[in-house]
Amino acid sequence: MNKDFLYTEIARGIANQISTGVLKAGDKLPSVRVLCREYGISMNTAKRVFLELESLSLVNSKPQTGYYVSLRPHAKLPLPAVSRPSAVASTQGPDELLDKVYANMGSKDFTLFSIAVPSADLLPLEKLSREVSAATRGLHGNGVAYESVQGNVKLRRMVAIRSLGWGGSLHEDDLITTNGAMNALSFCLMAAGKPGDTIAMESPCFPGTLQLATGLGFKVLEMPTHPVTGLEIDALKQVLPKIDLCLLVPNFNTPLGSCMPEENKEEVVALLAKHNIPLIEDDIYGDLFFGSQRPKCCKAFDTEGNVLWCSSVSKTLAPGYRVGWIAPGKYKDKILKLKLVHSISSPAIAQEAVGNFLNNGKYETHLRQLRRTLRDNYQKYVRTIAEHFPEGTKTSRPQGGLSLWVEFDKRIDTAKLYDYAIKHQISIAPGRMFTLQSQFENCVRLCFGMQWNAQIESSLKHLGTLAKAMLPGRD
Amino acid sequence: MNKDFLYTEIARGIANQISTGVLKAGDKLPSVRVLCREYGISMNTAKRVFLELESLSLVNSKPQTGYYVSLRPHAKLPLPAVSRPSAVASTQGPDELLDKVYANMGSKDFTLFSIAVPSADLLPLEKLSREVSAATRGLHGNGVAYESVQGNVKLRRMVAIRSLGWGGSLHEDDLITTNGAMNALSFCLMAAGKPGDTIAMESPCFPGTLQLATGLGFKVLEMPTHPVTGLEIDALKQVLPKIDLCLLVPNFNTPLGSCMPEENKEEVVALLAKHNIPLIEDDIYGDLFFGSQRPKCCKAFDTEGNVLWCSSVSKTLAPGYRVGWIAPGKYKDKILKLKLVHSISSPAIAQEAVGNFLNNGKYETHLRQLRRTLRDNYQKYVRTIAEHFPEGTKTSRPQGGLSLWVEFDKRIDTAKLYDYAIKHQISIAPGRMFTLQSQFENCVRLCFGMQWNAQIESSLKHLGTLAKAMLPGRD
Repeated sequence: MNKDFLYTEIARGIANQISTGVLKAGDKLPSVRVLCREYGISMNTAKRVFLELESLSLVNSKPQTGYYVSLRPHAKLPLPAVSRPSAVASTQGPDELLDKVYANMGSKDFTLFSIAVPSADLLPLEKLSREVSAATRGLHGNGVAYESVQGNVKLRRMVAIRSLGWGGSLHEDDLITTNGAMNALSFCLMAAGKPGDTIAMESPCFPGTLQLATGLGFKVLEMPTHPVTGLEIDALKQVLPKIDLCLLVPNFNTPLGSCMPEENKEEVVALLAKHNIPLIEDDIYGDLFFGSQRPKCCKAFDTEGNVLWCSSVSKTLAPGYRVGWIAPGKYKDKILKLKLVHSISSPAIAQEAVGNFLNNGKYETHLRQLRRTLRDNYQKYVRTIAEHFPEGTKTSRPQGGLSLWVEFDKRIDTAKLYDYAIKHQISIAPGRMFTLQSQFENCVRLCFGMQWNAQIESSLKHLGTLAKAMLPGRD
Repeated sequence: MNKDFLYTEIARGIANQISTGVLKAGDKLPSVRVLCREYGISMNTAKRVFLELESLSLVNSKPQTGYYVSLRPHAKLPLPAVSRPSAVASTQGPDELLDKVYANMGSKDFTLFSIAVPSADLLPLEKLSREVSAATRGLHGNGVAYESVQGNVKLRRMVAIRSLGWGGSLHEDDLITTNGAMNALSFCLMAAGKPGDTIAMESPCFPGTLQLATGLGFKVLEMPTHPVTGLEIDALKQVLPKIDLCLLVPNFNTPLGSCMPEENKEEVVALLAKHNIPLIEDDIYGDLFFGSQRPKCCKAFDTEGNVLWCSSVSKTLAPGYRVGWIAPGKYKDKILKLKLVHSISSPAIAQEAVGNFLNNGKYETHLRQLRRTLRDNYQKYVRTIAEHFPEGTKTSRPQGGLSLWVEFDKRIDTAKLYDYAIKHQISIAPGRMFTLQSQFENCVRLCFGMQWNAQIESSLKHLGTLAKAMLPGRD
């Protein structure tokens, strides 16, 4: 049995004991040494079991004494159900909410639970600035000349090398750089589809992607999605004859934070290839895993060039640099032409700076710290929500990424909650934004990409109070 | 009578005397003092008359002695005729030629007559690099955070202030920044039109724009265009009922270098507004005038918000920075939404750097030098062409910009000439690229954005030799 597989198997067994109550809150777990003996595994594998459980917030470590079942495990907050969107494709969404929520982007006076980016204080600003200055000196002509259409070769090489980490085997020539991941998705939609086509996506789904697809004339078919395991494959099988395209965020999808199990990814890739339906894979959150290992991408299972894999550094390093890329498989020529025609080339300096940053280990060091911070933030959010949000609140269980999906009692309309909260300088993303249909009216996405502090804590508590006040019989 | 108008009137009179042979090559012109007395004008106005004539390569100054009619005036090379494209709109172009020609972009081993950008040695590399480093320090969060969707306010403010120079009166809030001008045009086409619409453009026309429009599903109606005065207004009047959109490059259009007279601009803007047809104005070459004054833009005559004015610094300062903008008039909300959905925001650092560069007079100093160099280059090209190209060669008479349109004898197929020239490391842009129809097969666009040197001179001569060898009876 594969070693990677072994530790997740063991961790799953222990997790199961916790969720069924065999192991109770506060119980001490067997030591690393005991685990080694019991299962006949190495010290390293045993340690990974605990890291995995810790990353799922199921256990806590106490220095010198060992691991204990968390006092406030997630079990206190139930999971939302699998989404059940309408089977009719939609072509338009609620614009006014989007405009309202995005209007505050970049504002310093608000607590922005609404925006899924890491805040500047979690990013290596000084190191990046030095890379930018170095890039102007390192580039031929100081970076004022047009890049090649395909984009900076250092950046492409580094992204190719890093693809080993998610089961890929990309070559630098397989990649095309873009102006961030949205620009990558835009090119992919134009290359692999055409106006009038029907595209399947997860539901709930990032509003920008919904807008992009409908804006380009696509019909969006929202798919049933599990808050932990993502797209429901059986549902996909049923609609295969009527879709032309599929766009998924298999790793830590916003807003749910779900992650498709490896076997689901493999199955989806095979299914879509068999039906000749292109798969656009948005992997912008893939590097932000809370577990001990980077999840694979669908692209790892792509043998036919049918997967267009997109990512960027916007969620991990520098949103404002607008540096992204595509591994477009068999759509490479089409994407190159689209990039040339719509933008000539990408900005040279930012690509070189990011290429160099990725090249020298700085990125891995930064990612390790960022992941730790995000996981801690997430756990603090869940605890605060468990204590201060109204009864009946459910949350998703993100295994990585930047966002948490919160489902309130049916009577709480989160579009109204937005209006109340914004008066207190608190911005949230109402659930209605994440669909083109009438669903998720009692849901909200909360992002935890900001360093936890007194303001965040008090805003989160305040949000709970505002939500409670919306339930009847409370005045 | 307006002072600006006065000097152009007098210059036109003298130009007329040169073209009709009243004044002959080598003749001395009256002195500045004499001109003042004769026309009752100021010294400044008289000097502008000579600058204007010099900018048109009609006269040369000799230090201490005065102005003389050029020894090799343009008259030696006749003008191409007004283009007469088919009146049927097209939806597809010759892809393989474009791919071939653009494949060499950025290559250092070739003489790239084919690419209309100023070469790096004509750009203020060091100053720009310092601005980039300063921008990372000056921006909140060193520029790693998302910009506002509308874009950097310093840059928008400077573009607004500079609009006075072309008869505009923009406010910073009228502008949206983009990832270069092609990205601006792409958004404008999506905002002001829809797939299936018919769009009128000059013919010959920049291939990127043709590709962009057909790629987005537009039908392109190529319009008769005069090599000096641009779009033929009478032709436009005839097709008004069947077009939905118009895209023009009124100032120094590539490949012709034509410039629409002010009165034509005013008339076109009024005509299109009356018929409720949006005008997309691409003004990327507007700052590269050879005459004494920046020509106005169509946007200067726009009273209804019907003109979407686009420009960038790609032809004047830093192609690789991808910094452009739109003044979208009444399409502002639509463009903001498109920008958000297709790219979130623009790269922060490059915009801030360019905004600062434009703010402190450095840009004007740079432009003055660049214009002088380009005008000199152009004159050297024309002289070399007159001496070394086959008989019967005609050229356009660019009044600014970066490119010259050359029309050979009908028997010279420039797609073949491309194949011959590329073997000698010389890249040209065959005329066939600049249309979706079967025309311009004997034309070529030559760009003069590189510092004149022995290699350029010898490549240009060589090109003439290769062209001559294509005429029959020469072996």
